[in-house]
Amino acid sequence: MADHIEPKLASGFKDYLPEDMIPRQEMFDKIRAVFENFGFVPLDTPGLEKDEIITGGDPDFKMNVWHASIKDDSEKMALRFDLTVPLARVIAGNPDIKKPFKRYQIGKVWRGERPQAGRYREFVQFDADTVGSASILADAEIIAIMNATMTTLGISNFLIRVNNRKILNGLAEYADFSSDKNSAVLRAIDKLDKQGWDKVSAELCDAKIGLTLEQAGAIKRFVDLRVDTPTETLDAVEALMVKSPTAMNGISELRELTSVVRTMGVPDEKWKIDLSVARGLGYYTGPVFETVLTDILEIGSVFSGGRYDGLVSKFSSQSIPATGASVGVDRLFTALSKLGLIKQKKSVSKAIVMCLDRSVQEQCLLAVSKMRTAGISSEMFFDYSKSLKDQLGYASNREIPLGVIIGTEELEKNIVKIKDLRSGDQKEIAIDNLVTEIKKLI
Amino acid sequence: MADHIEPKLASGFKDYLPEDMIPRQEMFDKIRAVFENFGFVPLDTPGLEKDEIITGGDPDFKMNVWHASIKDDSEKMALRFDLTVPLARVIAGNPDIKKPFKRYQIGKVWRGERPQAGRYREFVQFDADTVGSASILADAEIIAIMNATMTTLGISNFLIRVNNRKILNGLAEYADFSSDKNSAVLRAIDKLDKQGWDKVSAELCDAKIGLTLEQAGAIKRFVDLRVDTPTETLDAVEALMVKSPTAMNGISELRELTSVVRTMGVPDEKWKIDLSVARGLGYYTGPVFETVLTDILEIGSVFSGGRYDGLVSKFSSQSIPATGASVGVDRLFTALSKLGLIKQKKSVSKAIVMCLDRSVQEQCLLAVSKMRTAGISSEMFFDYSKSLKDQLGYASNREIPLGVIIGTEELEKNIVKIKDLRSGDQKEIAIDNLVTEIKKLI
Repeated sequence: MADHIEPKLASGFKDYLPEDMIPRQEMFDKIRAVFENFGFVPLDTPGLEKDEIITGGDPDFKMNVWHASIKDDSEKMALRFDLTVPLARVIAGNPDIKKPFKRYQIGKVWRGERPQAGRYREFVQFDADTVGSASILADAEIIAIMNATMTTLGISNFLIRVNNRKILNGLAEYADFSSDKNSAVLRAIDKLDKQGWDKVSAELCDAKIGLTLEQAGAIKRFVDLRVDTPTETLDAVEALMVKSPTAMNGISELRELTSVVRTMGVPDEKWKIDLSVARGLGYYTGPVFETVLTDILEIGSVFSGGRYDGLVSKFSSQSIPATGASVGVDRLFTALSKLGLIKQKKSVSKAIVMCLDRSVQEQCLLAVSKMRTAGISSEMFFDYSKSLKDQLGYASNREIPLGVIIGTEELEKNIVKIKDLRSGDQKEIAIDNLVTEIKKLI
Repeated sequence: MADHIEPKLASGFKDYLPEDMIPRQEMFDKIRAVFENFGFVPLDTPGLEKDEIITGGDPDFKMNVWHASIKDDSEKMALRFDLTVPLARVIAGNPDIKKPFKRYQIGKVWRGERPQAGRYREFVQFDADTVGSASILADAEIIAIMNATMTTLGISNFLIRVNNRKILNGLAEYADFSSDKNSAVLRAIDKLDKQGWDKVSAELCDAKIGLTLEQAGAIKRFVDLRVDTPTETLDAVEALMVKSPTAMNGISELRELTSVVRTMGVPDEKWKIDLSVARGLGYYTGPVFETVLTDILEIGSVFSGGRYDGLVSKFSSQSIPATGASVGVDRLFTALSKLGLIKQKKSVSKAIVMCLDRSVQEQCLLAVSKMRTAGISSEMFFDYSKSLKDQLGYASNREIPLGVIIGTEELEKNIVKIKDLRSGDQKEIAIDNLVTEIKKLI
């Protein structure tokens, strides 16, 4: 029997060691700068909420959420599975918040996923949402943010796919079946890529859904629409679905969106209307968006969202429109690492002071203090019993660019040695010039 | 019956709305800059860990932790109650990490506290720890970080209180009682401020602890030590506890610490040795630290820690020394708000474009895009059906400094109006000079 506890994470959970966490944090900073550039303000909400908030009071809530409890407290609590439901709760609970309310939020979320490659049970979302505006401009701005975020992260090969739930919800009117079958029909269509039309058609016409062959044929004409530019796509779908007022409404929204998105500076080749985009979450009511990296499509969308005009009214007698999207930070980070767009980094220090003797400890401490006061991230190797070789080995392993060597000899001459660990170059400088010299070298 | 779910948080949980979250995030950024200035690197670990990691496999674990579960999975999981235990787990599980390992981490932690004023069930900690150095320099550096953090946050009235667990653990040797009574004795002493000596003495001599009057008298001489400078305090406690090798060891560590802390630039008046500081957590083994704000002592310590040389060995056959401290971010934020050192802020936007007519929408969109491209955080009011007065009201409520007004008249003359919402001044400028003018005004 081991005399200690195995230091293991449960499956589906992940640590970020510094070499990944440094670039990951740079990624967070960049996303935050984009969101703030668009005027979005930060919000923070707890990871744990009342169970009824998270599940919407639905005992048959479909998502497998984490429930949490403590001793001597019977209140049912759950971990949030996204940042959108808590936002809706905040809006409903704080009626004084001025609308439109444009907020961003970064935070961990938890889901009871079956652990598998690329699926985590805990992951970070980074959301931007506009609450209290029914304007299609708010949706277009989310697309503009998606474009700006990807561009700022140095990603050139991406595509934002846009659709409108109203077009999908219009399928019932268009193909003339009862609207309560709509979600079953959408779920069947969603399998098209994997199963092919024959199987999907069979499912549409089976006892459970029960479409006629004619109705299924209408669906086929819809899924067969293969067009290119937003305008062409909208023209084609309008010609097909003219019988459905719901779809017509959705099409007209996307027409306005198309012109606005261009004015907002999103290049035409960076986004398209894709009628197959549905986005799983039940709460979407209008335009929906997702962002794929075209070099690594298999990982799925890294930045997705849509309009959800009904969510706030779960928590309030007021109905408040809202739209937004969420960066799947962990998935995006994994993708960028695979694409070589993330550079691991082991250190934030620009310089490390090597201390070689107890008698020079004070000078070493003063040197590192001076650099820090001058704003140079730096550290000192505390263990003077270690050889210079060992200390240099530690510094180069951690990829610290500059070593400052202070020994008894150096101290007598009032000098220090600076070793550039990238080139191996070394020079002696007067101890008083330390900060100036280091600043030149970094 | 309400037709919607009450949008309420469970007690002990808290939202941070933007007006608080903006300065709070500025506080995070400042702390992070200090930690990185000292060469500490970021780490991230999950909020949820295996139960045995969090409780150390102890079925009688004293802290009331949150347990979490999902359907169809029997693995026992718990929410972390601090960031130190996960750090020890990371160190044990990744033996290749080069030591000393200096990491910082910011994250939410959860405790089953009885909700009361200023006690949260979920709060953010911001930790800096050095793992793999037994040097007292590492402890001194934590004190230097505490000093630098408080100073950087603009706090001038603070005091870092330092003690050494070894001195407290030496009480048994000094007062000649069995060392297994040590923690009961410390708990009794801890009540001195509230209960006075007579009650504490009675508890020390009762059946449960069972000290003799003579032993209790020795304890009284210890708690009565009232001295001032670190050196005077250490001289006095050394004279008193000379019989205890454990205490002598602790005193000699603090002597070295005293000289080093000064060299590191921590002003003498910002820290003192306080023999009453114990810090609750069981894992501390050496120097312990806490930081109080002297204008608001009642909130307790806002930045605390200590050396914990035994924690990693819970998860590893190796024993690895470690020291560090944790900012209690929420408590600190509450304190700084009370002291008026936090300025609420409702917006990050420097300018808002007011759109007054559908016909100028395109120009408005182009104006906001241009400003954003130039790095000016800005937004646009999307609803042109609202009057200029309404739009200006929204902008000033959100404390956005500049309004950009584009109407049909302005557009004909190729001009825009800029209204400074702080002063009320307004001027007309050529539309092409928008970015230049805005930059001048912010």
